[in-house]
Amino acid sequence: MLNTYYASMLSEKDIIFEIFQSSREKAKIVGEENVYDFSLGNPSVPAPASVNASIIDNVQMLEPLSLHGYSPGMGIPEARAAVAESLNQRYGCHYKPEHIFMTIGAAGALAHAFRAVTNPGDEIITFAPCFSEYKPYTVGASLRLSIVPADTDTFQINFDVFEKMLGPAVTAVLINSPNNPSGIVYSTAAIRRLSDILTEKSQQFGHPIYLISDEPYRDIIFDGVDSPYIAHYYKNTITCYSFSKSLSLPGERIGYLAVHPECAQARDIINLCPQISRTIGHNGPASLMQRILIDVCSDTADLAVYEQNKRILYDALVSYGYQCVEPGGTFYMFPKAPEPDAYAFCKKAADKNLMLVPGDIFGCPGHFRIAYCVPTERVMKALPIFKALLEEYDQYDPIVN
Amino acid sequence: MLNTYYASMLSEKDIIFEIFQSSREKAKIVGEENVYDFSLGNPSVPAPASVNASIIDNVQMLEPLSLHGYSPGMGIPEARAAVAESLNQRYGCHYKPEHIFMTIGAAGALAHAFRAVTNPGDEIITFAPCFSEYKPYTVGASLRLSIVPADTDTFQINFDVFEKMLGPAVTAVLINSPNNPSGIVYSTAAIRRLSDILTEKSQQFGHPIYLISDEPYRDIIFDGVDSPYIAHYYKNTITCYSFSKSLSLPGERIGYLAVHPECAQARDIINLCPQISRTIGHNGPASLMQRILIDVCSDTADLAVYEQNKRILYDALVSYGYQCVEPGGTFYMFPKAPEPDAYAFCKKAADKNLMLVPGDIFGCPGHFRIAYCVPTERVMKALPIFKALLEEYDQYDPIVN
Repeated sequence: MLNTYYASMLSEKDIIFEIFQSSREKAKIVGEENVYDFSLGNPSVPAPASVNASIIDNVQMLEPLSLHGYSPGMGIPEARAAVAESLNQRYGCHYKPEHIFMTIGAAGALAHAFRAVTNPGDEIITFAPCFSEYKPYTVGASLRLSIVPADTDTFQINFDVFEKMLGPAVTAVLINSPNNPSGIVYSTAAIRRLSDILTEKSQQFGHPIYLISDEPYRDIIFDGVDSPYIAHYYKNTITCYSFSKSLSLPGERIGYLAVHPECAQARDIINLCPQISRTIGHNGPASLMQRILIDVCSDTADLAVYEQNKRILYDALVSYGYQCVEPGGTFYMFPKAPEPDAYAFCKKAADKNLMLVPGDIFGCPGHFRIAYCVPTERVMKALPIFKALLEEYDQYDPIVN
Repeated sequence: MLNTYYASMLSEKDIIFEIFQSSREKAKIVGEENVYDFSLGNPSVPAPASVNASIIDNVQMLEPLSLHGYSPGMGIPEARAAVAESLNQRYGCHYKPEHIFMTIGAAGALAHAFRAVTNPGDEIITFAPCFSEYKPYTVGASLRLSIVPADTDTFQINFDVFEKMLGPAVTAVLINSPNNPSGIVYSTAAIRRLSDILTEKSQQFGHPIYLISDEPYRDIIFDGVDSPYIAHYYKNTITCYSFSKSLSLPGERIGYLAVHPECAQARDIINLCPQISRTIGHNGPASLMQRILIDVCSDTADLAVYEQNKRILYDALVSYGYQCVEPGGTFYMFPKAPEPDAYAFCKKAADKNLMLVPGDIFGCPGHFRIAYCVPTERVMKALPIFKALLEEYDQYDPIVN
């Protein structure tokens, strides 16, 4: 008999991918140029030239056995050192190479973080709206995931509910800022308050509550936005990062897990990681991709287009009457749908060849996600469709909050 | 509290890596040229030139967003097609691209195979001697691993014991041929008999028993050795492959899982794989590495050196009086230790700067593994040490069986 749990997952459709697929089908019928696909968080700007230069350099300069040989379970030492140095320079941290564990993107980092600092059956708390994959990620680590409902006025942390939910079974809290799907960056004040609560409750419960910080969008912050480096404010933080978005390398699956140098049992946590890898078939990212980080880990693609797209799209949507909290980063926006059923709204949008994702899958019904990691010209051309869509609704409250 | 299970793994030392590490320490003291490190299965021949040519080609020809973009959960379609076609041409199979799932090496493939065709608590059987990582691999999938003791005369399948152990709780059988650590290739007769038993027992138990075939050494077979393509003989076979050894790319972590086209629920098994990925942070091998397979998946490194090393080493060891079953492939050899305690023997070898791995970790005490994936000149220079080692023992039975 095949595995019943994984078989049950098949019936929970992967909505984002289904929408993306249907956009491909539509494109075949009405033409690529007539489909406005805002479904996938797939970077629209190329990797910086330094990436390909580094690949070619490594291939031409390194002897093949070194180039393609096994890397240690923790990752290639020089790549770990480069990541630590980059974090220290940019954020004034004090990571050493031994605090860095190289992973297959942020998903690989989270898979290790969850398993290292929890035991099966523990509770982990996160905040809506949140990335739809957190459910399978945490189920795979045998955790109970509790989701704090969204504060839909700000999409900052809903502290009142959080404090009520934070009981002694909680051994880890998971946050994602800049946030997918809202685009919101948690403020310094919010992170300080979170840190205070976790510190107090850790003492009260007699065990550390680890903060697992999922930060694949950390390098996409818009001008002037308050964007704290989260680990600064709470030492029991495990930072999970991916280069997918900052370097526009989503297919190459390269990221890391960084344990705060003063984290409780920091050394043990890192040492558990290769053991965890052995049980989940992880085995580390491609050597070549680790090696290029030695050259490029502080570089980014030209991310300015995302801010430009945000400005154009946000201003237009608000002027039409959509209610939306203005994003501080990422390439997502998460407006309120003009009807309670966001699926129905997204269906109407899809009928106009505009592909959006209902907020339900992010734990926040009544909203929809726009992934505006597309060429600016596509954003501009889609604006009349957004306008026409809203005009189909009489009852939508036009007052922007 | 950190995870108690993974913490417990820390005390089960990774013997192979420890030996490798101690060889690095020794090299610092006595000089690299005086340490004979036969501990790691790390290919000693470079990747074929076609690999680097394909990397450079892809980097120079493909537009960066395609080159480094997300690949579908199943893998890049052209890579899946190339693998299927290669298998069909070389082994007369009938795989279609939809039977192939791209993975992070063989470890990634096994992680999916185990989880797809079993449920937690199921029993899985494998055969000693076997790869030491099968224990964490199967624990991670919540399976009970039973190991059939070795037939130390041949290292073929010990059918008498296997048939006694094969009860209704067994939902999968795991084999590895060519075998790590013995170097033995299971014969066509053995695979036929295994197939007959599994077919009969599947009917008797009322559920399919899947055969999970771990084949990273499939392309390293010595001249004239009978080497069946295992899936030919049993349709409920899931083949797990890595390009680490055949292409000398162990760091790049690229492999696949292939489901026999007539396997029970073949389509479901493949469809479960991306769901499984979501729970273990797998997310597929690097796009670039998948792309090169379109060019090189039927190529191999120049593997002839392994057979040459085997011939020299095997003939010498036997002439000194070691008991050893002659390998049919891989780059391993698994002689009997001249004392019952293989750890003690390997310690004596290490004192002579000869690094070997005790068979205990492969479920076969009293033997030791030699990984002769080293330059031939290193094999030759190590021979006197093997000879001197054996001469320290009076009681070792010099009769070769």
